[in-house]
Amino acid sequence: MNIDKKTLAAWATRERAQFEDTLKQFVEIPSVSAEEARKPDIRRCADAAAKLIRDFGGEAKIIETDGNPLIHGRFTSSDNYPTLTVYNHMDVQPASRETEPWDTDPFVFTKKGNRYFGRGTTDDKGPALSAMWGIRAARQANIPINLNVLWELEEEIGSPSFEDAIKKHADELATDHMLVSDTIWVSRQQPAAPAGLRGLQGITLKLQTGTTDQHSGVTGGAARNPIGELAQLVSQMYDARTGRVKMKGFYDDVVPPDKRELADFRNSGFTIKQFKKDHLFKSIRSDDPVDVMKRIWAMPTMEIHGLVGGYTGPGIKTIIPPSAEVKLSFRLVKNQDPKKIQKIIRAFVKQHNPDVKVEIENSMYPYAAPTSGPLADAIRDAMKFAFGREPVFVREGGSIGAVVSMEKVFKTPVMFLGLSLPEHGYHAPNENYDWQQASGGIVSFVKYFDNVSKM
Amino acid sequence: MNIDKKTLAAWATRERAQFEDTLKQFVEIPSVSAEEARKPDIRRCADAAAKLIRDFGGEAKIIETDGNPLIHGRFTSSDNYPTLTVYNHMDVQPASRETEPWDTDPFVFTKKGNRYFGRGTTDDKGPALSAMWGIRAARQANIPINLNVLWELEEEIGSPSFEDAIKKHADELATDHMLVSDTIWVSRQQPAAPAGLRGLQGITLKLQTGTTDQHSGVTGGAARNPIGELAQLVSQMYDARTGRVKMKGFYDDVVPPDKRELADFRNSGFTIKQFKKDHLFKSIRSDDPVDVMKRIWAMPTMEIHGLVGGYTGPGIKTIIPPSAEVKLSFRLVKNQDPKKIQKIIRAFVKQHNPDVKVEIENSMYPYAAPTSGPLADAIRDAMKFAFGREPVFVREGGSIGAVVSMEKVFKTPVMFLGLSLPEHGYHAPNENYDWQQASGGIVSFVKYFDNVSKM
Repeated sequence: MNIDKKTLAAWATRERAQFEDTLKQFVEIPSVSAEEARKPDIRRCADAAAKLIRDFGGEAKIIETDGNPLIHGRFTSSDNYPTLTVYNHMDVQPASRETEPWDTDPFVFTKKGNRYFGRGTTDDKGPALSAMWGIRAARQANIPINLNVLWELEEEIGSPSFEDAIKKHADELATDHMLVSDTIWVSRQQPAAPAGLRGLQGITLKLQTGTTDQHSGVTGGAARNPIGELAQLVSQMYDARTGRVKMKGFYDDVVPPDKRELADFRNSGFTIKQFKKDHLFKSIRSDDPVDVMKRIWAMPTMEIHGLVGGYTGPGIKTIIPPSAEVKLSFRLVKNQDPKKIQKIIRAFVKQHNPDVKVEIENSMYPYAAPTSGPLADAIRDAMKFAFGREPVFVREGGSIGAVVSMEKVFKTPVMFLGLSLPEHGYHAPNENYDWQQASGGIVSFVKYFDNVSKM
Repeated sequence: MNIDKKTLAAWATRERAQFEDTLKQFVEIPSVSAEEARKPDIRRCADAAAKLIRDFGGEAKIIETDGNPLIHGRFTSSDNYPTLTVYNHMDVQPASRETEPWDTDPFVFTKKGNRYFGRGTTDDKGPALSAMWGIRAARQANIPINLNVLWELEEEIGSPSFEDAIKKHADELATDHMLVSDTIWVSRQQPAAPAGLRGLQGITLKLQTGTTDQHSGVTGGAARNPIGELAQLVSQMYDARTGRVKMKGFYDDVVPPDKRELADFRNSGFTIKQFKKDHLFKSIRSDDPVDVMKRIWAMPTMEIHGLVGGYTGPGIKTIIPPSAEVKLSFRLVKNQDPKKIQKIIRAFVKQHNPDVKVEIENSMYPYAAPTSGPLADAIRDAMKFAFGREPVFVREGGSIGAVVSMEKVFKTPVMFLGLSLPEHGYHAPNENYDWQQASGGIVSFVKYFDNVSKM
C-alpha cells in the first residue's frame, strides 16, 4: 500500500464498518474509573483491549499496578527499526441520564450519520481506535517502524498508579518515540497540537484560633476570625479581579510565548464568544482573545477552590468558628518548578500570617513539547497531509501527569496528535466523535509513523 | 415583713426547699425552642408557668403568638400603684449528653450542695423563679407596687414573634417600669448590670460569574473566581487581623465609653486569662483587658460567619465554581443605626465590586440602658443591699431583640437585674445556678421593687 492520501482514504473507508463495530464494543463497556462499582467493567475493558491487540496481530500484556491495569501492545517488525509508542486511555468520565441532559443512553453507542454518540467516543476510545487503525495501515504499508500502544485505565482520576508502574516496567515499555492522542483542537477548521501543558501545585491553608464555635456578640471584636484572616491572606496573595499573583518571585521563571507561538494562537480559531458559550460564563477577566489565550495557556494562575469552616446553612448564624481551611491551586507554565512555588508560598504565608499552616497537596510539573525540529515538523506534515492545513501549536491549560511521567521515564519528548473537537463534548453530556476526525486521524497516524521511520 | 437584709435572708431560707422543688419541676420540662419535636414541652412549660403564677396568687394569661406563647402574670394590689413588669424567658438552649460533656442528665435537676445543675437552671429559669420569690416577699411586705411577669418561650431562637405579640397586646401588657433578669456578671466577686446591648446587622453577599463548575486548567486565568472576589471584597471591607472596619463612615456615630464607664469596666473583674479560658481561645486580637472590654462591649464589629460555594470535601478539586456567597454580620453600638450601616455597605460594594449582590438579613438596634438617674441608682442600691457591693455598669456584647422591642412598645427604659455568673455555663454543658445567687437575687428584687415604689 502506498502512502498517498487517496489510497489511505479509500482503505479507511473499507475499514469503516469494522471501526464502528469496535468503537461500539468499547463504548458499551462503562469503564468509569471514578466509580468503585465499575471495577468489573474496568477489568472487562482491559481484557477487550488485549484481545483487540491480539486480533490485530500484536502481542498484548496486561500490566497490573496498584490501581487499574495498563495494557501494553507490541507490533514489532524488526529489532533494527525504531520503536514508537502511542498512549491513549480507555477509562472514561462518569455519565448519567438521570442527572445530565443526555439525548441517548451514554453507554449505548448511537450512530447518527457520521457522528458517534456515547461516553468515551472522543475521550479517548475513538482516538485510541483511530491510532489502532493507523497501526494496521502502517503494517500493511510495511513502514519500517515498531509500533506499540500503551493504554491507561486511570487517566480520568489523575493517573495515580501510572508513574510507579511505568518505572517498574521501564525495560519492557522502552520506546524511542512517544505520541499521545488525547487532546482537543480549538476549532474544527484548524488542526491544532499542544505545545505544552500547565503544571499544578495544590495547597491547603489552615488556621485555628479557637476550639469551638463562639458567640459573635459575647466575643466579637476580641476573637480572631479564621475565615476573615484566610480571606485576607489569599487577597494578599493575589488580586482576584485581575488574577495577578502578588507573591514575590512567582512570575520569575515564566517565559512568555514567542512571536511564532503568538501567531499560532491568533490562527487557532479561538474566539471569546465561543469560549464564553462553551463554558457558560456570564463574564470573564478579559475580552481580548490573545490576552485570554495567554491567560489560559501560557500564564500561571492562582485559584481558590473552596473555603471550609463556619456556618454555611440558610440565613445567618452569628458564630465565630474556631478554625478554617482554604483550598488553593496554582497552574504553572513551562520553566516553572512546583518545588520553587511551594517555597514562595511558605515564605509569603510565614511573613503575612505565621499562624497559618501550609499543607502541600498534589504537584505536577508543566510540560513543554517541541514546536520546532524534526518531530514537530513530522506532526505538522502529518496533520497537513490528512486534514489539508498545517496545525497551529497552541497549549493546553490543563495538566496531564502521565505526560510528564512518560517524558521522565522514557527519556524522549512526548508529541501530541489529538483528534477531538470542542463540539465533541469532552467530559460533557452527548459526548461524540465523528468519522471525519477518525478517518483523518487514521491517515495522520500513518503519515506520522512514516515520517518518524525516515528520521 | 420589714425590708431589712436579715429579715429577708431568713425568709428566703425558709422558702428554699419550695424554690428548689419548683426549679426542679421547670428544669425537667425540656422547653427547647430550637427543636420542633419539643413543641409539646413548650406547651407544658407554658401551662406550668401559668399554674405557678396562680399558685402564687396572681392572674395568669397565656398569650398566643405566631410562634410559641407568652405568659403574662399580674399581681395587682391597687390601681393607684405604679406597675413594674419583670421579663424572663422559660425556653432553653438544646442540650445532649451524647454530643456534649454533661456530667449529669441536662433535663434532670441535680442538686450538689448549694449548686443546681441542669439545662435552664441559670438561663433563665433560675432567675425567673428568683424574681417570683421576690414578688412573693414584696407582697408579704405590702410594698405599694403592682408586679407583673412577662415570660417568653422563644428567646433562644431570637424572639421572632415577640415584638408583634406585645404590640398587639400593648394595652393589657402596659407597664410603668420594665426589668429584665437574663444577664451575666463578669465575675462572682463583683455584681454587674448591663449599660447596653449591641445591635446587629446581618448581610449576605452573593456573586455569580458562571453557570456550572469549570475546569481550572481549561479556563483558569480567564475565568473569574467568585470565591476569590468575595474574599477580596471582605478584605477591603475590614482588616481581619485587627478587626478594624475600613468602610467610610462606619464608625461615625460611635460614642466611646466615658470615664465613669471605663472605670466600671476596670472594676468589673474581667481578666484576659479567664476570657480566653471561658471561650477556649488559642489567641485573641489584643491582650490588654480594657482594650478587650471595649472591643467586645463598646465597639462595633464586622464578622464573617461562613462562605458558601466551591469544593469543600477532602483534598483539592481543581474547579472554578460559578457562584459564591459570604455570610456577614455587624455588631452595632449605642447611637449606630442598622439602616445607615446598610447604606454604607451597599455603597461600598457598589463601588468595589458592582456585580456582587447585597442581601439584607436580620437587623437589631443597639440598646442603651440608663447608668445614671433614679432607676440606675435603684439598681445600684438593690444590688449593694443584697450582695454587699455596688454593681459596675458594663455592657453586653450580644443583642437581645426583645429588649429593644419592649423599650419601643412600653415606652419605658428597660433595666437589668441579672444573676448569672460566668461559671454557671450559659449555653454550655453542666449549666448550673446556685443558692447564693438565687437568695441574693430574691433580696435584690424586693429591694428594687421597694425603691421603685418610692419614686
